[in-house]
Amino acid sequence: MNEKNQLVVQKFGGSSLATEELLRNVAARVCERREDGADLVVCVSAMGDTTDELLSLANRLSGDESPSPRETDALISTGELVSASLMGIAIRGLGHDAISLSGRQAGIRTDDTYGSARIANIDPKRISSELERGRIVVVAGFQGLTPTDDTTTLGRGASDLTAVAIAASIKADICEIYTDVDGIYTADPRLVPDAQVIPHIGYEEMLEMASLGAKMNPRSIEMAAVHKVPMLITSSFNPDAKGTRIGNFKDSDNMEIRKSITSIATERAVSRVTLIGVADRPGIAAAIMTPLADAGISVDVIVQNVSTGGLTDLSFTVGQEYLQRVTEITSANNDVEYTDLATRDGLAKVSVVGTGMTNSPGYAARMFRALANAGVNIEMITTSEIRITCIVDEKNVGTAAQAIHSEFELEVV
Amino acid sequence: MNEKNQLVVQKFGGSSLATEELLRNVAARVCERREDGADLVVCVSAMGDTTDELLSLANRLSGDESPSPRETDALISTGELVSASLMGIAIRGLGHDAISLSGRQAGIRTDDTYGSARIANIDPKRISSELERGRIVVVAGFQGLTPTDDTTTLGRGASDLTAVAIAASIKADICEIYTDVDGIYTADPRLVPDAQVIPHIGYEEMLEMASLGAKMNPRSIEMAAVHKVPMLITSSFNPDAKGTRIGNFKDSDNMEIRKSITSIATERAVSRVTLIGVADRPGIAAAIMTPLADAGISVDVIVQNVSTGGLTDLSFTVGQEYLQRVTEITSANNDVEYTDLATRDGLAKVSVVGTGMTNSPGYAARMFRALANAGVNIEMITTSEIRITCIVDEKNVGTAAQAIHSEFELEVV
Repeated sequence: MNEKNQLVVQKFGGSSLATEELLRNVAARVCERREDGADLVVCVSAMGDTTDELLSLANRLSGDESPSPRETDALISTGELVSASLMGIAIRGLGHDAISLSGRQAGIRTDDTYGSARIANIDPKRISSELERGRIVVVAGFQGLTPTDDTTTLGRGASDLTAVAIAASIKADICEIYTDVDGIYTADPRLVPDAQVIPHIGYEEMLEMASLGAKMNPRSIEMAAVHKVPMLITSSFNPDAKGTRIGNFKDSDNMEIRKSITSIATERAVSRVTLIGVADRPGIAAAIMTPLADAGISVDVIVQNVSTGGLTDLSFTVGQEYLQRVTEITSANNDVEYTDLATRDGLAKVSVVGTGMTNSPGYAARMFRALANAGVNIEMITTSEIRITCIVDEKNVGTAAQAIHSEFELEVV
Repeated sequence: MNEKNQLVVQKFGGSSLATEELLRNVAARVCERREDGADLVVCVSAMGDTTDELLSLANRLSGDESPSPRETDALISTGELVSASLMGIAIRGLGHDAISLSGRQAGIRTDDTYGSARIANIDPKRISSELERGRIVVVAGFQGLTPTDDTTTLGRGASDLTAVAIAASIKADICEIYTDVDGIYTADPRLVPDAQVIPHIGYEEMLEMASLGAKMNPRSIEMAAVHKVPMLITSSFNPDAKGTRIGNFKDSDNMEIRKSITSIATERAVSRVTLIGVADRPGIAAAIMTPLADAGISVDVIVQNVSTGGLTDLSFTVGQEYLQRVTEITSANNDVEYTDLATRDGLAKVSVVGTGMTNSPGYAARMFRALANAGVNIEMITTSEIRITCIVDEKNVGTAAQAIHSEFELEVV
């Protein structure tokens, strides 16, 4: 460890490590950064689809029940162990000293919510001592250890969280997240060809966008905001990408491309669950949501209708992959009475995000009008101070994003 | 844990777990045993060829050098973690409570000889407490933890060792090793069609045979002998197999099939290294062997010729897979001077084993004559009290085994 070197945490996701060749490229990139003068901690995800493949194997073997969450975590955490040790080997193969650490060895301690554990604390002793020996430290992302000595995982996409948490604990100068895109865009470029990479974004806006399908783990942004960890989201494939810096940026930092809103976030594969004829009494929403939260399922948009005759309808959205479990859990929930449970698949979320909206009325109306003019029906609406979200039919998501992008002139530099 | 239940350690090897279907079958078999009234610890190897596949990936990524032994152990130990958690999931899917433990969680502590670590001690606290909760405990074989908190592996085939060591530490009633054969045979049945399963065998004879290619890890037999762990070697595929019991058996226990020798062991893929013109001075053999032992390479048959003019030739055999490293290590060994280093591939070991030989001369002569009559040339010879080993050309191994099997009438019941 050299006092003059920048202290950098880098994180490479599964798609950046999907093949032997890609893994070798990442190792080369890490070594270049090292040679430029940086002390490095490299967090890695499992290679490609490893986690999904292990999960389907577990599901097939577990019979009628879901596989035990503890055993599932013991299983899927191996994917990151494999990529970490392979990365260590590849870096050493390129002539730099490296050591791989499991989440446990990296000092990451969590609660025992298997499948989506919370980090309780990090003891970076081993990381620091390996850095002091001049080594590149490769850490298996996505995992930690409970107080009872069992392995947990931190939830899908949570290797980002490992990276940010380590960056906070060792007071890194920057936490760099390498992905398969060039940065955070003003809208999904597959939907909106004019979309651009945002050079700078504040934690708060990024947090809204991360919750809205921007492929960033919201908990990692939250943690970065709390510990003031500067982040860079950039491409692991395109070395020329400038990426998006996340930090305590003010509106003026982005003037070159920004209007009142920063970007449009889209998320596909959304399902809606509607409970019809629910008793409209205090605590009913909590009674519905608590068992879902306990199961680690995050509920997004919640809308409750005006009550008629003491009964109301309550709708919420969840990721399509959770729909079956949500239906099971809610049907088994004896604390809630309702007449009927209806579900709908094939929806999408379209959101506009921007701190510029806070003090200026009229953005919601402009968004709704743009959607109406494009012939897109709105199924549900929610808003926060810096965000407006509409649920639309999934087949309209491109039309919707383009219409809004154009309405707010995000394509104009 | 039920006081009346038998306490059983079972071990299933990689070929018994090579596919999802096989793994499910093993889980079903474990559950049956549980239902018959046994408290169970189940040790598992990695599924099928996982370890080899990870090793070749590591070799490809490590450039010109061999991959770091520490990183290699971190990598390949994941194979057993995967099969242990999948086995836990499959057993639970069949309605029994089960928990998987890594080698570390099972309390297995080793030295830091990565790649072939020695077990220093086992603290079976966690295993015992999980058994007391009525759970089937699945342990990832082949691995342990160093005093500096790093993962080690115990050497190829050493999941057997994990099973025996755990059996010794929890004082199990029996340690059952499930393999892809019906038990220990009088000779390799692929070479000698009349070969039979030996019902009982003593530790000492088994140890000789294990060193000689009987597909059992010699260190596990050694440990079983020291701790007096009764073992059963049987088939994971054939539920009707009676298997071979290993224990403190006397000659008379095997009278029904045994002549003076118990069995014939064969091992293919043997290479010979010959150092020509070595100075014949005290300590020369040690000087040659020590760096090989340090690298965890086990040398088998060692033969030193009569010295002429103060120089001698020294030959030894190693498994073919080690030949390159042996050549490298020996060439780099400055403590030994020699004129030339010659190697030969494509050899095999043929051994006869039996405590009956100890007090009766003439067995060696009968063996050599049988080989001569079958037209098999002998390349090297070594003997112990209960064993005679000949090195022959690999292409003659079947002819040699049949000739000896027939000479000693092992096929006659």
